[in-house]
Amino acid sequence: MEDLLITSPANPRLKALAGLRRRRVREAEGRTLIEGFEELDLALEAGVVPRVVFYCPELMHDAAAQSRVVDQVRARGSEVVRLARAAFQKVAYREGPDGFLAVVDTVTRDCSGLEVPDRALVLFCEAVEKPGNLGAMLRTADAAGVDAVLAADPVTDWGNPNLVRASKGTVFSVPVVSDTTEAALEFLVEHGIALVAATPDTDVEYTDIDYTGPVAVAVGAEKTGLTDRVLEAATHRVRIPMVGRANSLNVSTSAAIITYEAVRQRRRAESLSSPAPAADLRDIT
Amino acid sequence: MEDLLITSPANPRLKALAGLRRRRVREAEGRTLIEGFEELDLALEAGVVPRVVFYCPELMHDAAAQSRVVDQVRARGSEVVRLARAAFQKVAYREGPDGFLAVVDTVTRDCSGLEVPDRALVLFCEAVEKPGNLGAMLRTADAAGVDAVLAADPVTDWGNPNLVRASKGTVFSVPVVSDTTEAALEFLVEHGIALVAATPDTDVEYTDIDYTGPVAVAVGAEKTGLTDRVLEAATHRVRIPMVGRANSLNVSTSAAIITYEAVRQRRRAESLSSPAPAADLRDIT
Repeated sequence: MEDLLITSPANPRLKALAGLRRRRVREAEGRTLIEGFEELDLALEAGVVPRVVFYCPELMHDAAAQSRVVDQVRARGSEVVRLARAAFQKVAYREGPDGFLAVVDTVTRDCSGLEVPDRALVLFCEAVEKPGNLGAMLRTADAAGVDAVLAADPVTDWGNPNLVRASKGTVFSVPVVSDTTEAALEFLVEHGIALVAATPDTDVEYTDIDYTGPVAVAVGAEKTGLTDRVLEAATHRVRIPMVGRANSLNVSTSAAIITYEAVRQRRRAESLSSPAPAADLRDIT
Repeated sequence: MEDLLITSPANPRLKALAGLRRRRVREAEGRTLIEGFEELDLALEAGVVPRVVFYCPELMHDAAAQSRVVDQVRARGSEVVRLARAAFQKVAYREGPDGFLAVVDTVTRDCSGLEVPDRALVLFCEAVEKPGNLGAMLRTADAAGVDAVLAADPVTDWGNPNLVRASKGTVFSVPVVSDTTEAALEFLVEHGIALVAATPDTDVEYTDIDYTGPVAVAVGAEKTGLTDRVLEAATHRVRIPMVGRANSLNVSTSAAIITYEAVRQRRRAESLSSPAPAADLRDIT
């Protein structure tokens, strides 16, 4: 069976897509957009079944290889719609579209359904504003093997298309939840997870504490940082040493530096508790 | 003396400003734009003397305090021009302008004029494309106390307004140079600086090597990473362990993780070589 083909940029189905750029519409419909081959591919790998996939072979970078993704979603039962170039360009929201746009269900979990392993590593983001920063933190969380990312008192929804894009689709592979700060703190207490809060107002450096147990790394809003509520609830308050003139590191950079210190300590603890490899310190000069 | 006041958005001096958004014009004129109070303030702190500062009291967040910056640049001998709201909004290039826009000389140094201390910590960025990523790396370099940032075979100029903005003005405080990859590599050899190249294609982890001597951390273009030329010239090739589905961390995140590992090792080495403070591991539970 031939896929439906839409050639007119004025087609009403395409107009409806633009609505999903607005948060209110995304939340009312429980849907959001994924644009881009790489992002869609990651979402599919994470098990997402799109509602609809719009594709445009003329815009694909490698139509032969990438058309296989279209076959794959068709096989999963997703609706598949082919768009003419002008029609695709009408609905694409980024520069240099690559011929893939999908409608998927939004991720909308709260803490009540979240399960984490015994020695959990969690990223706790309170009221972070910029979708790009949340997306960057999801990439870090994905790379670092973080068990869950909690958005506490969120001001951006996980379905924000700029967040989906900045996350390179990892918003669909990393376990993410949104909840109130209170509920998120309660979750940590219930699960015996220590809370390490990043703040400039402490003398304790982030490298001075132990991350080998269950631990959540907490960062706050770009301009104001963590609220007093979180700082008071924290097991440790830590700072990243800074010597420069600018006020602070970007929030996603701070989160990455602390999260990878946790990874470093955990990997070292694991290698100390298991037989040493033949060469631990290598030099390839 | 009253400052010149421009009320018409059609004023030819304002039209000329728009040209500085184009790289060719910036390079021909050797000038670029700084927009925003925070960014301008950082540049001034770093000793920059603007050619012209355009200001608009009606748009300032705190006109009483911020007008002092206008007095400061006037005292330095910069030309100062007041703009009516409509005129300022015409030349502002970002959303939510805060009433400050300055024309400054572009940073255009190459390696020949660069001086670094004995135990230099350098960030080497080869062909990084996105101004936002270079800006984020400058903030990290500023915070970490990096002695120089080398743009090797650059594709973005240090005067790019989005870079200036993303750097929060640190492009004027951190020593930055642009040069060919060859010249940048030669600079490192001449100054006895080890080159640590970030790449996924190695088994050596970034935490496995010693950064306490003179060292440059190298990262490459967003899509293709470092060129073979740099990988071959590297003293060490290192990778950041990643367990996730996405291909890689953002380049500025990778640079921050490795740079802060260098900072961690250096601070530890310093504290070991000097008398221990009263409490090295603190716990504020």
